[in-house]
Amino acid sequence: MRLIGLDPGLKTTGWGVVDVAGSRIAHVENGSVSTDARSPIGERLARLYDGLVAVIERLEPDEAAVEETFVNVNAASTLKLGLARGVVILAPARAGLPVAEYSANAIKKSVVGFGHAEKAQIQAMVRRLLPGVELSGADAADALALAICHAHHAASRGTLARALAAQGRR
Amino acid sequence: MRLIGLDPGLKTTGWGVVDVAGSRIAHVENGSVSTDARSPIGERLARLYDGLVAVIERLEPDEAAVEETFVNVNAASTLKLGLARGVVILAPARAGLPVAEYSANAIKKSVVGFGHAEKAQIQAMVRRLLPGVELSGADAADALALAICHAHHAASRGTLARALAAQGRR
Repeated sequence: MRLIGLDPGLKTTGWGVVDVAGSRIAHVENGSVSTDARSPIGERLARLYDGLVAVIERLEPDEAAVEETFVNVNAASTLKLGLARGVVILAPARAGLPVAEYSANAIKKSVVGFGHAEKAQIQAMVRRLLPGVELSGADAADALALAICHAHHAASRGTLARALAAQGRR
Repeated sequence: MRLIGLDPGLKTTGWGVVDVAGSRIAHVENGSVSTDARSPIGERLARLYDGLVAVIERLEPDEAAVEETFVNVNAASTLKLGLARGVVILAPARAGLPVAEYSANAIKKSVVGFGHAEKAQIQAMVRRLLPGVELSGADAADALALAICHAHHAASRGTLARALAAQGRR
């Protein structure tokens, strides 16, 4: 199963793709889509959307995971992030992918082992879990962490489903 | 020139299309796109986007106007509205339309004459400005008010441009 993690931002949206087979996770590719702050908002959202659609068409992930928005103290920033996030969720949804959402703490817990890890700890862990990975930036690293988090949850869903199926056969 | 007004909401997004020739404004069509609150967020955004793309492809407006988001006291609502708004701006932007934004007060001022008009006053004024119009709902009425507001601004931009051009020729 191929998963894409998406870390939404109007300025830069990171993405990271991994392949999952059982408990093994392999890195496929990571990168980011950036938009020019001087462009009109519509053009920025279109650039973001088209950039992500191109990645999804090329790498054909089966499922997507998006970071749940941090509700900022600043309402204007929350709003801006909301715009980007709507478009970031739309790209995989329109391609027919199920879209899961995880909070920043759930991601840290899943990748590093505790909920309040630092950025540097997350990147170190992503490098350890995906040996040889070259991180194209901080947003791409976060997106890979998100994909790993989703892989862990998908794996436990799979285990649960098999356990329930086995129970059903008894 | 044909204008589309868009009043964004995750539950219901209103749209209204008018034709503008000089100072005359004629109603073309109005309606709304609704999404099922029980569906996953990705599906709701995809439904919203596809619905608006279909309207834009069918009626071929030249420019779009979107209501500037009211920054709610409730951060979760602000965020939800942001998601919808990102997708609502994306639809005309990806079709190559310039997208203008107006605050709720600017719209009221432009349509009713003062900034703190009630919903009912806006609808009454939309009915007066577009004789014979059938309003498909409150969100569609707001979207038509937005299109009228944009027509007024576009008209003054045109007048200004002509005045500046005339001045340049002197």
